Amino acid sequence: MLASKLYSPTLREIPADAEIASHQYMLKAGMIRKNGGGLYSFLPLGRRVELKIEAIVREEMENIGAQEIMMPIMQPAEIWHESGRWNAYGPEMFKLEDRHGNHFCLGPTHEELITTLVRNELRSYKQMPVTLWQMQNKYRDEIRPRFGLMRSREFVMKDAYSFDVDEEGLHKSYQDEYEAYTRIFTRCGLNFKPVEADSGQIGGNHTHEFMALAQAGEAEIVSCSKCDYAADIEKAVPQAVEMPAEDAKDVELIETPNCSTIEDLAQFLHIPVEKTIKAVAFTIDGEKTVLCMVRGDHEVNDVAVQNFIGGNVIEPATEDELKAHGLQPGYMSPMGADKPDNETFFVLVDPSAMNVPNGVTGANKAGYHYQNVNPSRDFKDVTVTTIRNMVEGDKCPHCGAPVEIVRGIEVGQVFELGTKYSEALHATFLDQNGKAKPYVMGCYGIGVTRTIAAAIEQFHDEHGIMWPVAIAPFEVAIVPVSSKDQDQVRIAGDLYQALQAAKADVLLDDRNERAGVKFNDADLIGYPVRITVGKKSAAEGTVEIKVRRTGEQEVVPIDQAVARVQAILADLRSKNM
Amino acid sequence: MLASKLYSPTLREIPADAEIASHQYMLKAGMIRKNGGGLYSFLPLGRRVELKIEAIVREEMENIGAQEIMMPIMQPAEIWHESGRWNAYGPEMFKLEDRHGNHFCLGPTHEELITTLVRNELRSYKQMPVTLWQMQNKYRDEIRPRFGLMRSREFVMKDAYSFDVDEEGLHKSYQDEYEAYTRIFTRCGLNFKPVEADSGQIGGNHTHEFMALAQAGEAEIVSCSKCDYAADIEKAVPQAVEMPAEDAKDVELIETPNCSTIEDLAQFLHIPVEKTIKAVAFTIDGEKTVLCMVRGDHEVNDVAVQNFIGGNVIEPATEDELKAHGLQPGYMSPMGADKPDNETFFVLVDPSAMNVPNGVTGANKAGYHYQNVNPSRDFKDVTVTTIRNMVEGDKCPHCGAPVEIVRGIEVGQVFELGTKYSEALHATFLDQNGKAKPYVMGCYGIGVTRTIAAAIEQFHDEHGIMWPVAIAPFEVAIVPVSSKDQDQVRIAGDLYQALQAAKADVLLDDRNERAGVKFNDADLIGYPVRITVGKKSAAEGTVEIKVRRTGEQEVVPIDQAVARVQAILADLRSKNM
Repeated sequence: MLASKLYSPTLREIPADAEIASHQYMLKAGMIRKNGGGLYSFLPLGRRVELKIEAIVREEMENIGAQEIMMPIMQPAEIWHESGRWNAYGPEMFKLEDRHGNHFCLGPTHEELITTLVRNELRSYKQMPVTLWQMQNKYRDEIRPRFGLMRSREFVMKDAYSFDVDEEGLHKSYQDEYEAYTRIFTRCGLNFKPVEADSGQIGGNHTHEFMALAQAGEAEIVSCSKCDYAADIEKAVPQAVEMPAEDAKDVELIETPNCSTIEDLAQFLHIPVEKTIKAVAFTIDGEKTVLCMVRGDHEVNDVAVQNFIGGNVIEPATEDELKAHGLQPGYMSPMGADKPDNETFFVLVDPSAMNVPNGVTGANKAGYHYQNVNPSRDFKDVTVTTIRNMVEGDKCPHCGAPVEIVRGIEVGQVFELGTKYSEALHATFLDQNGKAKPYVMGCYGIGVTRTIAAAIEQFHDEHGIMWPVAIAPFEVAIVPVSSKDQDQVRIAGDLYQALQAAKADVLLDDRNERAGVKFNDADLIGYPVRITVGKKSAAEGTVEIKVRRTGEQEVVPIDQAVARVQAILADLRSKNM
Repeated sequence: MLASKLYSPTLREIPADAEIASHQYMLKAGMIRKNGGGLYSFLPLGRRVELKIEAIVREEMENIGAQEIMMPIMQPAEIWHESGRWNAYGPEMFKLEDRHGNHFCLGPTHEELITTLVRNELRSYKQMPVTLWQMQNKYRDEIRPRFGLMRSREFVMKDAYSFDVDEEGLHKSYQDEYEAYTRIFTRCGLNFKPVEADSGQIGGNHTHEFMALAQAGEAEIVSCSKCDYAADIEKAVPQAVEMPAEDAKDVELIETPNCSTIEDLAQFLHIPVEKTIKAVAFTIDGEKTVLCMVRGDHEVNDVAVQNFIGGNVIEPATEDELKAHGLQPGYMSPMGADKPDNETFFVLVDPSAMNVPNGVTGANKAGYHYQNVNPSRDFKDVTVTTIRNMVEGDKCPHCGAPVEIVRGIEVGQVFELGTKYSEALHATFLDQNGKAKPYVMGCYGIGVTRTIAAAIEQFHDEHGIMWPVAIAPFEVAIVPVSSKDQDQVRIAGDLYQALQAAKADVLLDDRNERAGVKFNDADLIGYPVRITVGKKSAAEGTVEIKVRRTGEQEVVPIDQAVARVQAILADLRSKNM
């Protein structure tokens, strides 16, 4: 490709609403443009990256025998009513009507569609297992689309669905996808971790998220400093923290003015935060009030709370609800509150909070706390269960080594759905005994466009993007320093043709621009290898080769340049970088 | 691919709503499934065909230097308001709202989006010409989706948009796309014709439709029996037909009971239909009434009428409108009606109707006609202009030879848009003199999914599909007659591996099915080449090779089978069949 023909309008200024590197650089480099909130066009350079990722996904899906299909984006409301998700999905689903008044959604996911697609035709255990997949635009009406491709409203997803006769088959299909995902993200050059995750709204019981590790990520991941263990913070189950034993003292009511936070309280009383026990209260489905007690330095894991209690929607409890159960907002604890009935009112205490000796907690009286609280003596009728997030230094549940908390971008997820959708949609096959059974299903997603953003978050510097070779828009850029120097133009042109003949994916910057502009653009767009043709090229017969990712530069004779570039590319590829 | 693993549920019965071969066979062969009115899933075999067409399109777009992009499907209403098409597009456009109440459409086309995408960044004549294209789902809320992929509501289109500095540049971009389209449809194996067409609602002044010739097509095409001329019937301009001269007789009012059609009238009066002059009336934009007179055996071309008068919406006139202008429904003519003011009431007469000597036409009195009408004498204040469709035998406007009328499926269209959208959307560049000028644009579409249907309409027999090699889901199928015969299974398996090693796109029918089922499925799905491994294969060391398209069969030694299949495929490919 000739740069003079390439439509890639670069920007000199970073747009104000672009907060993270991937968003900034894709706009600056002319890879994407915004057409509306969370709606983007991919310009030629961006589209090239996306197509390369799609090709890698396609190859790896073929390798595991998954078959490519294409389902409609527009889905009839009926099948969502059948599964019960038409209303449950909430305002994130785009809905529309046709000219006859029939209702449709723009698919945020395709469990309903795939299940109804196969339910009358995948009839026998003999036809299974089968995994079908597609690569397609998906739609989510994010309340606040942001971060460019990271959280957009229209995005490309690869979604796969497996159909097995039993759990054992599902484990195998799941494992195949898991391994394919590992290969895909490895080939894309990402630094990623598969982490144990909570299955959330989609249902099912076993799931991993593939997380690209990056500070800009919206997910928190617990990662062992020693072994392979990694889990979404919502999923990770911390062990109880022990504290040095003390003789239990008598409970005292103390006045604690102006202590609206746990930190204020600890400071006022001159005690460490660990000696306080804090309270957070939720409503689940507007029916159940749940008081949660954790140690002052810990945070409540609301997913753990919801998983323990059940229900669909968890929200902060209102003041009225709290008061109805004898709870004083800001000064809550089980002490002095109603007795939990474990039907409409629950009190959950985290094991680490149970271990606090002679601690401080709310007195359910404005401006007052209790001190010398020993939960196993003083908290009556409560339920002890782990409801806190892991923190740095907690013990790894697998090996006991201390964990770290890192941030990640979710680029893929694999789910064991089981029979949730096949039962809801009455989708069955006949087993070996001629008995109708629901499919045992799995589903598997990759955020294709989000993967682009994740790669940039991981691989960039202050000058621009540093693409992994496998997904770079072009592998090599040739930059003649002066477009007016006929020798340079000729040498660059010859190299361009030679590299094309050698099947390299090469761009020649033949634009009539200053050298600085061309170098800056090459760094910004992030071609893995740059060949500079300058004055020395004609005089001494050499060119300079620079590797964007490592910054390494070398000067090589022109007649060895093609071979050297090929060797460098092969080396980078072999390292998935 | 192993047939036992392939998800392609064939049907034994043709679904009732499938009226044409492509729809029937794609359903029967398990290539597509309906998920709602005009909404289809592509199963693995169908998706393979589509991907092959997409690859051909991509290659040919690259060949002409067009650059691939991807725009959002969901488009903000604002840009359609800006161009004036938000309301003008009518009920075929799917519209929706997001959670904040903002309006969007699902793109039926992308002129607005591409123009606003580039308008602030394609700033200089130096950056042009540039052609950008994408391959994407498009949406049209057809009032009656039918014929499977031929007229669906969600379909895959390739759409390209060119930006030039002047008309001359546009002609060149247009010609490049025209030639690329010719290569694309040739490579896809279609029997097609580029025909001159009317530019219709999208605007612009020069356009060709690429028509796949097929009886199931919805378009009528005028095609010269001798030269290259071909035009959409709406676009073709027929010459006036002469009739033998007669002495003009006096007009007479005659009673014509029960003559509600022109045929009844001719029969009642014992005259040829050619001696009658019939009337059809329209309303344009609800403001203008247009009475159209054509010879009794001709049909009115409403597009020609609309182009002559102008306006957006042409509909049949209502009885009230007719009576307001002195016209009697069923007995209309200019004689006895109001005088046309050429503002709200027009009378257009086709030149061939003007040539009818002593003809019969309506008397604007129920049950009566005039005879011995000579239009040039008797039709007062009318406008003579060509408003009829061509018919078989009309003279070719290029060479004068008789034309034929054939049917076609529109699979592609190329348009010279000119400055219609760039002016409406204030999208300009700076020319060599630093003057702002609107882009001179072209747009170019291919119905990718419709091309699949067109290929089947052209290439099928009573047993099923006969795919052109270039777009067949698999090029070769190997069928062992008995899946229980170990020799056959081994020979078939060896051939499968050998063909895979030779890079053939091959399917092995390893299913435990009767030979008849396997043969029928192979014919139905339409693999171009079938290798049959039977009893003789083990006994005599031969296999049978059958070419689906020609029906030719031959018996070859097993060790020559791979080479022979490759030769057959190469031969078919070279003939684009």
